[in-house]
Amino acid sequence: MEQIKPYKKGVNYSYTLGAFPTFELLKGYPELVREVYIHSTFTDRENLLELCGENKIPALTDDKLFRKISDKENCFVIGVFDQYECSLDQSKSHIVLVNPSNMGNLGTIIRTAVGMGIYDIALIKPCADLFNPKTIRSSMGALFKLRHQHFNSFGEYREQYPNHDVFTFMLNGANTLEVQNCPKTDLFSLVFGNEAAGLKDSFLKEGTSICIPQSPDVDSLNLTIAVGIGAFLFMHQAK
Amino acid sequence: MEQIKPYKKGVNYSYTLGAFPTFELLKGYPELVREVYIHSTFTDRENLLELCGENKIPALTDDKLFRKISDKENCFVIGVFDQYECSLDQSKSHIVLVNPSNMGNLGTIIRTAVGMGIYDIALIKPCADLFNPKTIRSSMGALFKLRHQHFNSFGEYREQYPNHDVFTFMLNGANTLEVQNCPKTDLFSLVFGNEAAGLKDSFLKEGTSICIPQSPDVDSLNLTIAVGIGAFLFMHQAK
Repeated sequence: MEQIKPYKKGVNYSYTLGAFPTFELLKGYPELVREVYIHSTFTDRENLLELCGENKIPALTDDKLFRKISDKENCFVIGVFDQYECSLDQSKSHIVLVNPSNMGNLGTIIRTAVGMGIYDIALIKPCADLFNPKTIRSSMGALFKLRHQHFNSFGEYREQYPNHDVFTFMLNGANTLEVQNCPKTDLFSLVFGNEAAGLKDSFLKEGTSICIPQSPDVDSLNLTIAVGIGAFLFMHQAK
Repeated sequence: MEQIKPYKKGVNYSYTLGAFPTFELLKGYPELVREVYIHSTFTDRENLLELCGENKIPALTDDKLFRKISDKENCFVIGVFDQYECSLDQSKSHIVLVNPSNMGNLGTIIRTAVGMGIYDIALIKPCADLFNPKTIRSSMGALFKLRHQHFNSFGEYREQYPNHDVFTFMLNGANTLEVQNCPKTDLFSLVFGNEAAGLKDSFLKEGTSICIPQSPDVDSLNLTIAVGIGAFLFMHQAK
């Protein structure tokens, strides 16, 4: 069995830290789980052992490992799994993130997307590491509820998914998003840029450009907030 | 002049890290600024020196201080200021945070509130430290654009501001928030609970309880996202 070391980008495995995301992992992708570590002091182990047993996943004890790879004291379960890639569902709406750079934001956006009922997320490289345990933690395990697919460019994404109505969220977007005027469409891609730079002006022509109205007293909204507002309005206007 | 040390809760000063939030501080509360430190390698200093000069604020050089109190390498300006407390504007709508515990979230919520045009934020103790430099950083300086006031309890807040229509955001809220049905009111308080625990059931009776619809595949939305969606809908429905 491969020795688990503190996560580094480039390895082909990762791990969940905590019971809740480990359950989500076991329910979503049991076939990818290598082993589950349960701390010797963890009491609520019955369901966990049952789920491991059903899927023939080794449930191990190695308290030293927790000190080695977790910086939180309240982590009692670790799920080690193989990294994986998906294809998006072409019949469902997508969120497209162009060069997101912050792992906490990426995890929060995944959690938000799933919360809003969007289960497909496209990631345009370069992109924060989806499988870093920090990303997984901030997704609260929602990573294992959706499909993700990486692309080298937005063009590559569009070649594979040409039928979606594209909406690009930009500070200089041509259309101000209001509650009353959110476009109604069944199949959409909501496109968001990098935290610091946003989307380049070339995205003004990639579809319908959208601006979320904001006061002049802030530079911009936080990326995660923009995704939350955009996803909520589109999912709740679209029939 | 008092020696500046790495921030600890309980001191009566704090500091901004970076040119952007320092500008916001100087524009918002010049009378509270003790001094501004500019790193010797910082080039874009003309506006900064002008603003300090106008307000008779010492502009100092002390490169060692940057190493001592900033963990980011790209910080070239520090603004030291006295902590302060405000009164909320009773004629404006408020966001009320009950026991927020995470400084990053608190800063993001402040930035979001200002972005949405809500300039009054009530904080019910215990509460994450508003003046910790981490909170200020994640607010992107928006802290200096709004009024904040701490309270020992929600009851104490209501005694001072009894005229607001209260909306409590709860997973078991009685009214599902939709684009079409967001209450129209000119003077509202949007109330949100702690990241982990939410609002206690007693808040069901504090006003109109609201639930943001979400898929069964997440435990809850991130607090900052809930505030973003709630604030957007209320500000854009209300006339």
